[in-house]
Amino acid sequence: MARTVDKEKHEARRRHILGAALACFRRDGFRGASISDICAEAKMSPGHVYHYFPGKEAIVEAIAAEDLRRVGDLFEGVSGADDFVGELLRAGLDQMADGSAYGLDGALGAEIVAEASRNGRIAAILKHFWREAEARIVAALGAAQACGRLHPSLDVEQAALMVVMLAEGFGTRVAADPDFDDERSAAALLTALRRVLMAPEDDRPA
Amino acid sequence: MARTVDKEKHEARRRHILGAALACFRRDGFRGASISDICAEAKMSPGHVYHYFPGKEAIVEAIAAEDLRRVGDLFEGVSGADDFVGELLRAGLDQMADGSAYGLDGALGAEIVAEASRNGRIAAILKHFWREAEARIVAALGAAQACGRLHPSLDVEQAALMVVMLAEGFGTRVAADPDFDDERSAAALLTALRRVLMAPEDDRPA
Repeated sequence: MARTVDKEKHEARRRHILGAALACFRRDGFRGASISDICAEAKMSPGHVYHYFPGKEAIVEAIAAEDLRRVGDLFEGVSGADDFVGELLRAGLDQMADGSAYGLDGALGAEIVAEASRNGRIAAILKHFWREAEARIVAALGAAQACGRLHPSLDVEQAALMVVMLAEGFGTRVAADPDFDDERSAAALLTALRRVLMAPEDDRPA
Repeated sequence: MARTVDKEKHEARRRHILGAALACFRRDGFRGASISDICAEAKMSPGHVYHYFPGKEAIVEAIAAEDLRRVGDLFEGVSGADDFVGELLRAGLDQMADGSAYGLDGALGAEIVAEASRNGRIAAILKHFWREAEARIVAALGAAQACGRLHPSLDVEQAALMVVMLAEGFGTRVAADPDFDDERSAAALLTALRRVLMAPEDDRPA
């Protein structure tokens, strides 16, 4: 029982540091925020913070792992829905509207992508994130296909890649221009998602 | 005649500074590169550089204007092609493979997107870029539609938005992971482009 309490305490402190780091990264950027800024924001000593995370890259890794869980939840949550694509978009936009939903989205996400070109550790974290995100999306699309929500001949691996490209492209625009997240863009995203998730075009008359 | 020579000289110097600035931005990032770094790279005095560009934002604006011209050329160049979408992808990938094709692509593009969240001038430049890029894509899609390369009922404004999202999403992935630019990803991008540019789904049996 004491061990459970310790575990909970440990997890609470870990999350506290992640929250403080996100606040610093969003304010000053990944490069601009130092570990001592993060310690000040978290009101913890460097030794204490280092006990949880050996550096900024480890913090980004933990945030990416959280994001991955959320991507998985998003797709699993809708994979049995009658209107799979409509529900996916609705749930996805809800997640985006809730500022705390993803750690590495918006401007910080763009900055981390830029950082990857100069920092191999960050590049490896992003590569892992995208590979795993795609695997979870493939699993959810496969489940939707199994219960007849998606056409049986849809290539779910390719579809997952197209969905990720669309989501990244939408996210990039919203990051630079919050006004982009309007009805017109959401309608375009919905149409694009429906089209990349429908039956292969060869099955249809031209 | 003397005036033409002056104009050419002026344009050559302007391009020389843009090239030097791009080299600095790529190496040290937009924030990391200073005007004096750019002067050193261009082997020109600050007074001389300031005569052409009053600051880093003006340099980004000039690079974005160049990129816009290239987006226009890309779409206009293929709008009459028989296989409009296939040619578009081929020409687009060729442009990406040619490292000098776009200024604000890859990691620098991601960094500029991140910068937009903290710098209103950069946000305005990006907003203008995307609005104009979409307008040029709409014009080219309209031309392709007029000569029967695209279905007459395609909503070209929405299609342009979907094409930009896909291109941004693809570019984001390539920026963080150069290995992403492989056959599998190119095939997914081609499929996605074909689908967002085909006849509206309502015209087809479900």
